[in-house]
Amino acid sequence: MQDSFLDLKTALSAPDNQDLVMESIGHLQPFDIARLLLELEGDEQQQFIEVLPLDMAAEVLEYLDPELQYALIHHCDDDKARALFEALPSDTAVDLLLAIHPLQAEVLLTWLPEEYRERLDTLMSFPEDTAGSLATVDYISAREGWTVEKTLGHIRKVGRRAEIVSYVYVTNARGQLIDVVSLKEIIMASPQTLLADIVANNPIVVDALSDQEEAAHVLSQYDFLAIPVIDADKRLVGVINVDDLVDVIHDEATEDIQKLGGSEPLADSYLNTSALTLFQKRVGWLLILFFAEAITGNIIRHFEDALTEVIALSFFIPLLIDAGGNSGSQTVTTLVRALALGEIGINDTLRALKKEMTAGVLLGAVVGAAAYVRASTMGGVASPGLGAAVGLSAFFIIAWASTVAALLPMTLHKLKVDPAIVSGPLITTLVDGVGILVYFSIARMILGIG
Amino acid sequence: MQDSFLDLKTALSAPDNQDLVMESIGHLQPFDIARLLLELEGDEQQQFIEVLPLDMAAEVLEYLDPELQYALIHHCDDDKARALFEALPSDTAVDLLLAIHPLQAEVLLTWLPEEYRERLDTLMSFPEDTAGSLATVDYISAREGWTVEKTLGHIRKVGRRAEIVSYVYVTNARGQLIDVVSLKEIIMASPQTLLADIVANNPIVVDALSDQEEAAHVLSQYDFLAIPVIDADKRLVGVINVDDLVDVIHDEATEDIQKLGGSEPLADSYLNTSALTLFQKRVGWLLILFFAEAITGNIIRHFEDALTEVIALSFFIPLLIDAGGNSGSQTVTTLVRALALGEIGINDTLRALKKEMTAGVLLGAVVGAAAYVRASTMGGVASPGLGAAVGLSAFFIIAWASTVAALLPMTLHKLKVDPAIVSGPLITTLVDGVGILVYFSIARMILGIG
Repeated sequence: MQDSFLDLKTALSAPDNQDLVMESIGHLQPFDIARLLLELEGDEQQQFIEVLPLDMAAEVLEYLDPELQYALIHHCDDDKARALFEALPSDTAVDLLLAIHPLQAEVLLTWLPEEYRERLDTLMSFPEDTAGSLATVDYISAREGWTVEKTLGHIRKVGRRAEIVSYVYVTNARGQLIDVVSLKEIIMASPQTLLADIVANNPIVVDALSDQEEAAHVLSQYDFLAIPVIDADKRLVGVINVDDLVDVIHDEATEDIQKLGGSEPLADSYLNTSALTLFQKRVGWLLILFFAEAITGNIIRHFEDALTEVIALSFFIPLLIDAGGNSGSQTVTTLVRALALGEIGINDTLRALKKEMTAGVLLGAVVGAAAYVRASTMGGVASPGLGAAVGLSAFFIIAWASTVAALLPMTLHKLKVDPAIVSGPLITTLVDGVGILVYFSIARMILGIG
Repeated sequence: MQDSFLDLKTALSAPDNQDLVMESIGHLQPFDIARLLLELEGDEQQQFIEVLPLDMAAEVLEYLDPELQYALIHHCDDDKARALFEALPSDTAVDLLLAIHPLQAEVLLTWLPEEYRERLDTLMSFPEDTAGSLATVDYISAREGWTVEKTLGHIRKVGRRAEIVSYVYVTNARGQLIDVVSLKEIIMASPQTLLADIVANNPIVVDALSDQEEAAHVLSQYDFLAIPVIDADKRLVGVINVDDLVDVIHDEATEDIQKLGGSEPLADSYLNTSALTLFQKRVGWLLILFFAEAITGNIIRHFEDALTEVIALSFFIPLLIDAGGNSGSQTVTTLVRALALGEIGINDTLRALKKEMTAGVLLGAVVGAAAYVRASTMGGVASPGLGAAVGLSAFFIIAWASTVAALLPMTLHKLKVDPAIVSGPLITTLVDGVGILVYFSIARMILGIG
C-alpha cells in the first residue's frame, strides 16, 4: 500500500496523468483505493476522483463519508458531477442525500431521471434504523411470464448497475413480490423454462417499517445473501444486501456493549468522538447512579451505633458490595446478550430466573466461605462472630444480586424496553443498598451490638 | 407454523405418506422445516428426514446440531445414510466429523469418494477458530484458459452441489488461486471471452491458519459475499461464505460481552448452558476479584483511627468506590469494543489516553461537585471539611479510574493479550484500593484527624 501511495502521488503531479494514475493503483480493490484517497491532500483527492473511470469512482465513493462524497461530487464540473451522482449505488445516494442540507439534496435530486428520483424518494421516507432505510433499488427484477433466456438477456442489459446480483426478484404487474429466484437456479434451468415454473410463491421478506435488527435477524437465520423489503401493499420497495446487515450487526453489538458499560451509545466511531461527547454520553448515568448510591450512605448511617461499637465492620464494606456488583454484572451481561440474540424470550423468564438463582446460591456459598475465612482470620480484628456475619452476608448478597440481575432485564424485555439499559454499574448500585442492610442486620444479630 | 406442524404430525402418522408430508411443509424454507423437525418426537424426526428428498434433507440437516445430524444419518438404512452424508455441505460435514467419536468419523469418511475425502481431511486439519476451519470446498472453480461459455457449462454441471455460487474461483494447474470472478461478470461477458481476459490477478484472500476474526474483518471491509482461503503455497483450500462469518461476528461480540461482564465466555447458547456451568464460568473471576478486593479492607483498616474519630467517613465509602468503578466501566467497555472493531490500534494509545483523561477530569468535576453538595448537607454529620474531602476524592477517583481503564486495555492489546479480560468488575476492583487511599488521605489532611 505504501508503494502504491507514493506512485499515486507522483502520478497525480504529472501532466496528462490518467494512464500513470491507473497504473499506480494497479488492480487494487475499491476499498483499498478509498484508503489511498483518504491519505491524499484535498485537491489531490479531487484530481484523483476526476481521473478515475466513472464506475470505479462511484465504487470508491461508496467507502467515504457522505460529507466527503458530496464535496468531491460538488467540485466536479457539471456533467461529471451528474454522471457520478447517478452512478452511485442507490443506498449510498440515499445516505448522502439525507446527510447534506435539504436544499443541496433537492438540487442533486433534480439531476436524476424521474422514475429513479421517485424510488429514491420512497427509500428516503423510511425512518432511520428501519429495514426500509437500508434498502437499495439496485436489484434485478423480472416477471413471472418471462423465460430463463429472456431473464438472462435482461440481466445482461441492466446487470451492470445492479448491486444485488445473486438473486432475481420476480414481481407481478402491480409490483408485488412473487418470489426470489437465485441466479444459480436461473443458470441451471433450460433457456425456455418460464420463471413461473421455478418460483415457489413463498418469499421470506421484511416489512419496510420493521426494525433493521429484525432484518439482520431474519438474514442470519436463513443464511441469505440479501433480503427483500416490501411495503404495506406487499410491493417490493428495495432489497437489503448482507454487507449492510453485517454493519447493523456490528453496530447493534457495539451499542449494547456501551450501554452495558453504563454509558449512552456513541453515534460515531471512537476516534471521531471528542472527549466532550464522551463526557456528555457518560455524565447522565454517572449522576443518576451517584444519587441512587447516596441512599446506601443513609443506610450505613442508620447503623452508626453498631459501626462505632465494632469499627472493623467498615473494613468489609467494599468487599461485600463489590461481590454483589460483580456477580450481578456477570448475570446481567449474559442475559442481555442472550435476549439480544433471541436465544431466550419472554417465555423463558422462569427458566432463566431458576438458572441464575441456582448459580447465585452456588457462587454465594463459595465466596461466602472465602469471606468467612478472611474475616475470621484478619489479624487483630478477627472473631468467629465477625467471620460468620461477613460470610453469611456475602452469601445472601450474591444470591440476591444474581436474582435481581436476572429479573430486571427479563422484566424490561417483557415491557418492550431495551434490557441493555440495565448496565453492570446500574445493577451494582441497585444491589448495594440491600447488601449493606443485610450485612449490618446480620452483624447486629450475631454480634449482639447496636 | 403451528398449522404446518399439526398437518405434518398427521401426515407422518399416515401410511405411504410422502405426498402428504411434502404437502404439509408446502414451500417452507429449510430453516423453517428444521424448526418443525425439532418439535417432533425422536422417531417422527427420523421418519420425516427419510421421507424428504435427499437434497432437501441435507439442507435441513444443516440447521441441526452435529449430534442430531449424526443420529438421524446413522439410523437411516445404509444407502440412504451414505447418500445423505455425501450430500451435506462440506463445512457441515466437517463440523459433524469433528463433533462425533473419531472411530465413528472414520466410518463416515470411508463412505466418501477418495478425492472428496482428502479435501475434507485438509479442512479438518485446521485448528478451531482459524479461517481454514470455516471453509467449504463446495465452490466452483475454473481455469484461466476457459471461455465464458465453457465456464457456464461447467457451472450447469457442478453448480447443483455448490454452496458458493456468486463467484467462480480461477486457479492454475497447480491449484493456486489466480483470481475471483463474479458470476455477474461471467454472465455479462460474451460467450467466447477467455477467463484470462476478465481476471485481474489480485484476489483478496485469507490464510488458512489466520484467525477467523481476521477473515470476518476482511469480509466486512470489502463487502464481499465470500472469501477464499489459501494455504502456505497459495493453493486454494476452500472458501468461507458470508453466513458463516456472520455467525463468527455474533459469537465474537457475545464472547466480548460476557468477558466484559466478568465471566469466562460460555461455549454454548444460554438455554443449553446449565446453572452448574454458569457457576463454573463465573466462580474463578469472582474469587480472584474477591481476593484482590480484600486488600481494600486492609487499606481502610490502616485508617482505623481516622474512622473512629469521624465515623461519618464510612458513609461515603460505597458512593466513592462505585463512582470510580462506574466511570472505569464506561471507559473500558468503550475502548475494548473500539479495539475489537479495529477502530483504534496500538498507535492510538496516546490519543485514547488523552481523550479518556479529558473526559475523566470533566466527569470528576461534575460528580465531585455533586459529592461536595451531598457531604456538606447530609443532616447531622455534614461539615464543609467533610464536603471538601468527599468532593475532592470523587474528583480524583473518577479521573484516576478513567486513566487506568484506558491504559490497561491499550497495554494488553499492545502485548497481544485480549483486552476484553479487563472487565467492568476488574476495573472496579483495581481502582477501589487507590480510591480508598486517596479518600482517607485527603480526609485526614483536611479534617486534621487520625
